[in-house]
This record gives sequence, structure tokens and C-alpha cells, in this order.
Amino acid sequence: MPETLADIGEFGLIDRIDALVQKAGMSLPEGILGIGDDCAVFQPRAGYEILLTCDVMVEGRHYLPRFISPLELGRRAMSLNISDIGAMGGTPCYALISLGLQPDMPIADVEGIYSGFVEALAPFGAAIVGGNITQSGGANFIDITLIGEIETGLSVLRSTARPGNAILVTGYPGEAAAGLHILLEERPLPDPADQPLVEAYNNPSHRAREGAAVAHTRLATAMIDTSDGLLGDLGHICDQSAVGARITQENLPMSPALRQAARERGRDPLTWVLGNSDDYELIITCAPEHVADICSAVTRLNPIPVSHIGDITPASGRPGNIEIVTSDGMSRTISRSGWDHFAS
Amino acid sequence: MPETLADIGEFGLIDRIDALVQKAGMSLPEGILGIGDDCAVFQPRAGYEILLTCDVMVEGRHYLPRFISPLELGRRAMSLNISDIGAMGGTPCYALISLGLQPDMPIADVEGIYSGFVEALAPFGAAIVGGNITQSGGANFIDITLIGEIETGLSVLRSTARPGNAILVTGYPGEAAAGLHILLEERPLPDPADQPLVEAYNNPSHRAREGAAVAHTRLATAMIDTSDGLLGDLGHICDQSAVGARITQENLPMSPALRQAARERGRDPLTWVLGNSDDYELIITCAPEHVADICSAVTRLNPIPVSHIGDITPASGRPGNIEIVTSDGMSRTISRSGWDHFAS
Repeated sequence: MPETLADIGEFGLIDRIDALVQKAGMSLPEGILGIGDDCAVFQPRAGYEILLTCDVMVEGRHYLPRFISPLELGRRAMSLNISDIGAMGGTPCYALISLGLQPDMPIADVEGIYSGFVEALAPFGAAIVGGNITQSGGANFIDITLIGEIETGLSVLRSTARPGNAILVTGYPGEAAAGLHILLEERPLPDPADQPLVEAYNNPSHRAREGAAVAHTRLATAMIDTSDGLLGDLGHICDQSAVGARITQENLPMSPALRQAARERGRDPLTWVLGNSDDYELIITCAPEHVADICSAVTRLNPIPVSHIGDITPASGRPGNIEIVTSDGMSRTISRSGWDHFAS
Repeated sequence: MPETLADIGEFGLIDRIDALVQKAGMSLPEGILGIGDDCAVFQPRAGYEILLTCDVMVEGRHYLPRFISPLELGRRAMSLNISDIGAMGGTPCYALISLGLQPDMPIADVEGIYSGFVEALAPFGAAIVGGNITQSGGANFIDITLIGEIETGLSVLRSTARPGNAILVTGYPGEAAAGLHILLEERPLPDPADQPLVEAYNNPSHRAREGAAVAHTRLATAMIDTSDGLLGDLGHICDQSAVGARITQENLPMSPALRQAARERGRDPLTWVLGNSDDYELIITCAPEHVADICSAVTRLNPIPVSHIGDITPASGRPGNIEIVTSDGMSRTISRSGWDHFAS
């Protein structure tokens, strides 16, 4: 019988996690008070603003344990928060973690999840400074609040895109959606060619370092990560900037693995590329003359594609409209599919 | 049929909450970017440290909807986080809220919970700046991260109590435990005399303003709130300060309502006073010559009792030992009953 939470209790688990975090060499900068008091305390750096974000993942809703290891789960839960900090141009510093767990949860799994948190935070020298663990009333859940910093005035918002701006996107949005689709097929022998897509779902890359580099160019007019899917998040930029967007179908990035997976399944790959997908790529807008500078700010750090998929348009008709120009040169307005967690 | 989350969806609910928060006059100070971008952004004040705390409440584990209204629930969930900020001596500024909800949750109840958040934050001019709402995998849950501030160097920690220090406690710890006990009896006609205890459970007072006043005296050596019960939290001070404690039974504060409720039920009132109880009072340690100054810092703001219940002792034997001197003058070591959420 593996050791469970019921065996060692909440305070026993907290001791284990403390030991794990310290063993990983995650130490707090001097002057930072972490786990073990009513609050964590830190001295903000002069000239920096503080960034705050939180995201919750519920078992069965946002992940299925049979498809993802505890280590991957922890890494992914932390990465999606890091992605939000990066999409403003900032750098993560401190994490607070609330876990709601079933008493029969094996301790080794909780340690695996925490190791994933630590792995995701380590490249930034960021630390876990607080949190709490409680018994969940059903499904397990992981709620992370991540605190970051950015030089004052450097944040890149969603609300500042302007008509005529170019729309850029990093990487291959939609790969994670394809990976999830493949996992849900539950085939006995998955095709090795599909493995990159499954990997994109279980170990999504965030683009936080790239986002910070983009912010430092001071040339981006708006930025967002693709956590609600390419159309959903481009839609957030359009709504909040009171603009529209026109994207060109043939400029949408599509990896060979995604094309092949779609072909084999008789699916339109665009449903993955445009729809909800947990990829955590960046959508960036900028003046057309700055496209090359933005692209090289990203590719200097990481040789990923940065695709110019379209342009911001004046808000005509309904604000926030997104048009797509298809390969036959026709243009049509498309509906967005931001993930609505409650709508049926 | 009341309108539910399934009817209006996640984004519909977010719009409702935005409207509610704005209607309550909760506006963000200039230069603060709140709900609606990847992160909230704020400029920390020069000369201040940042405080971070989070706490999660799970339905069925931390509250039962049949005993508490949505408004009270929201107020209580926020108050316990405010209490943690106050127990360091700080002031709450920004809240991030994650809600895990069942689709059949009435919208009016969600609005009630948010109204409770707003009511608790309003006296501090503090604001809700972010969060997320998701479908829970079973029981509803509320996870709040609260960000506060305190003048640099003014934080009062748990780890700095010294032998010879006086131990003070505000208010009447244990009233909430008695109130919960009474609720769980589910009597058809509750005794009106018990009402103050039920009220102490459903609408616990935090002592954040009092905690800030204590910190400003610079005379407290340690401070904590009683969220794990009087013994549990005094135990945290002892462990982290590597000291012991001796408390005098007859100096423990006990309200008439609590005495009467215990008498009527043939219970020892000390089990409520010393054990786990959701009261959010403060335990404060200080040099004996500063007791009067600390007491008056509290009572100038709020005419509540501040009781000198005992003294910090050197760590003898097992560190963190707590002795109680009973009314017959005998002294015995008592075991702590900090709430362990998993132990059976």
C-alpha cells in the first residue's frame, strides 16, 4: 500500500514538501520570509511593478490523471501561470499554492506534483513562499497564485492594439488540442508520429522569457497568451482594444505533425489551430515596421516560428469582429470559440 | 427556477461580478490594472514590504451552506485572509479569487458571496483585482489570495518570542467553536442565549486594524492569529521561536455566553477555548513592561478584552511544550490540538 495523505496528515505533508523544496535548492533571497508565518513578506524592488495572476486546475475538468504524470501536471499547472506573467512581459518571482486533495492520494504523487512546480520555477530563481493543503470535497484541485515583477511602465496590455498593427503568433497553436484529442481516443497503440502532439499537451511550453524580451523592445502594442485558444485570445485583444482583426488562413502556422494527425482522422486542422488549445503561445501586435525586430527578439532566445498571421482592423460593425481570408481570397467573419467553462 | 451558472456561463458570470463590484463603488486606485488582462499590475509603495497569504474553503469541510448565508460565507472567507495580513501587522490591498462551483449554483448565491468579499474589503479600500471561476469536480470551493502591505521592517513574526515575554490574547477564542457545536446540534428552536456564539462562527471578527496598531507600537515580539485554535497557534509561536509557554487557566478569557452554553451541555468550556475554533483573534507576545502599551493600542481602536494568559518559558525538554497552571496551582503539560485536516 503506498503511503497516503491520510497516513501522514496535513502537517506531515507540509514537512515533506518543505524538505523537497529545500533539497531542490530552492532558497529564498535574503530578506524574504516564506512558508511558516501568517504571510510571506518580500521587499519589492525599486523601479518595478508587481504582477499578480492565479489559475486553478480541477481534476476531471482540466486534466485526467490517467493521461498525465504528477510531475507533468505540476509543471503544466505552474507553466500556465508563468505564461500569464510572461504575456505581460514580466518575470515570475513567488508562488502560493492551494491544493485540495483526497485523503487516499499517494504522498509520492503529491511530491511529484511539487517537483513539477519546482522544475517550472527554477529557471527564473522563483520560489514557493506559501499556500495551504486541504481535503477536497470530491475532485482534486490545484490553485496557484503567481507573483511577478516588471520594470515600471513596461507591461504589455491587451487593450492597446491599433488598426493597421500586424498580428504575430509564436509556435504552433493547436498542437495541444490535437494532443488532447489523441489522448481521448485511448488507442491501445498510439502512433509514434502523434507523440509530439501528446507532448505539446502534457508539457506545454510557455513563452515567458520570449514575452519579457518582446516587452523590452518597447515595440509591441499588445500581447496575450493563447490560453483561451488563438481565436478566443485574439478576440480578447479585439474587445479590449475596440478593434477588429483580419487573419489570412494560409499564414496560420501548422506543424507537420498536426497536419498529418488531422489528415489521418479526416479532420479540418483549423479547428485545432483556431479553437481552444492549451498551448500557451503568445499573440503579439505591433506596427508593421516593427515586425522584424519583434521576431528577432523572440528567435534570438528560441528558434521557434513567429508567424505574421494578419492585421488589426478598425472596429467595423460589431466591435471585436474577426475575419478570415481563405485560400480562395474570400473573406468571412468567423465566430470565436473561447472556452466557456459552463456553457453546454 | 432560479438562474444558474449553467444558464449564463462563465463569461456571463464574470460580467455580473464586474458590475456588482463596480456598483459597490470598489474602484481601483490610479495606475492599478485589475480584472481583464493576463495579470493585475500594481506599483508598490516606496518604503513598504508586500505581504502574501492564501486560504481555501471547501464546502462540507470548512462550511455547510445550510448554516451560513452566501453573504456571510463571502465575508468569512475574506476575513480569515484579512486576519493573516493583520497578524503580521499589515493592511490588505488586493485580492485574487478562485471559485470552483457546481453548474446548478444559483447566480444570486454567487453574487451574495462576492458581496461578502466586497463588504470585508471595503473598510480597507482594498480591491478584487483578478481570479477565475471554474466548474468544481464535486464540492464548491473558494480560494482567496490576499496581498497586503506593511512599512518595511514593521512585520511581527511568529519566530521572535523570547522567554519571559507575556502572552496576550484578544477577545474570546472558542466562541466560534461553541457556535459551530450549537449549529451542528440542529435543534428546531435554538436558544436565543446561544445566538452570540452562532454569530461568532458565521461572522467572525478579524483583528487586522488592531494588529496593525500593535505592529506600530514596535513593542510586540511575536504575533499570530488563532485560526488553528489558541493552543495550536500558541504552539506555532513556541515551535518557531524555540521556546515553551506556561498559561494560567484562570486567566483564560471566557464569555458568559460560552460559559452558559458549556454548562447547559455538561461540557468543559476549555475544550472550546483552547481547541480549534474559527475566531481569528490575535495572540501577541511582548516584554512584561510593555503589556499595558500593547493593550491600550488595541483597546483604543476597539473595546475588546486583551487578556494576559501566561508567559513564554525557555524550551525545556521537548521544544514547544505548553504547560497549563490549573486553579489548584498544579501545572501540567497539555497536548495541542491544532486542526490537522487529514488525520482521523
